[in-house]
Amino acid sequence: MLIRAAKPEDFEQIWPIVRAITTAGDTYALPRDLDEAAARQYWMEAPRHTFVAEQDGRIVGSYYLRTNQAGGGSHVCNCGYAVAAEARGQGVAGAMCRHSQALARELGYEAMQFNFVVSTNVGAVRLWTSLGFQTVGRLPRAFRHPELGLVDALVMYKWLGDSTGDSA
Amino acid sequence: MLIRAAKPEDFEQIWPIVRAITTAGDTYALPRDLDEAAARQYWMEAPRHTFVAEQDGRIVGSYYLRTNQAGGGSHVCNCGYAVAAEARGQGVAGAMCRHSQALARELGYEAMQFNFVVSTNVGAVRLWTSLGFQTVGRLPRAFRHPELGLVDALVMYKWLGDSTGDSA
Repeated sequence: MLIRAAKPEDFEQIWPIVRAITTAGDTYALPRDLDEAAARQYWMEAPRHTFVAEQDGRIVGSYYLRTNQAGGGSHVCNCGYAVAAEARGQGVAGAMCRHSQALARELGYEAMQFNFVVSTNVGAVRLWTSLGFQTVGRLPRAFRHPELGLVDALVMYKWLGDSTGDSA
Repeated sequence: MLIRAAKPEDFEQIWPIVRAITTAGDTYALPRDLDEAAARQYWMEAPRHTFVAEQDGRIVGSYYLRTNQAGGGSHVCNCGYAVAAEARGQGVAGAMCRHSQALARELGYEAMQFNFVVSTNVGAVRLWTSLGFQTVGRLPRAFRHPELGLVDALVMYKWLGDSTGDSA
């Protein structure tokens, strides 16, 4: 698997991956009818960096990295990951998350925060936990799941700097 | 005290209040050098509603209300409050927070979330707690305080809907 910076024309392959996720509406707090222009803005233009994961020359996943808060919070970044349905269970998300942590350190960030991990997305929660993220918050009934109704969302966080006991 | 919807020309009085807060840099995760145009965008234009608190015809505080997350998270709103230094300790923030909760219910929101309450801002933490907010998350060292260095930030949350045991 090759993880590389996204080029603008990559969005042609990224969009179906993101659209499948937003249409399902069960993992991301994004409009289910998010259109292509808004998705491009959200995934490619607003973030500081966007990367893609390629397998055999085909894009199977993508992630973005952005600064999570301004001012006194600007040492913490945020990422979002998307994997094509047909490429799930092959370690793509984990590889992208490790890549994003290395990128974040290179860029000088000291921590990474996931603001809104839907609690019923147990695969994601397990994966981020295994990659060193702690669940530092639980937002009661903050997500309306299309099948399950109101469910909690989690805030997950990993310190990336040197000056810490967290070495996961 | 009168709390009313802000008019565009009110920003002339709101801006010094917000500027004092961003310049101090110890409570909001906003750039300390935030300029007037960016502040207007952040406080007046991006949010769904902005209100002001008036005393004797003078604006002594302001708050904004916005939807905190899109899609399945859009039933939760977020607010930010600012009080003029000379009007602190007179209940302005509390009055605005109560007003914003009533507004949020009117607009159909089911919960209110504060994403980033600096933990050393003990007056704010105490006030929000007294107004029914729970601390549902703690972001370790997520804020660089200008005097204290890295300090935690809190996520605070209040359910506003009917179907809950929380009646604060």
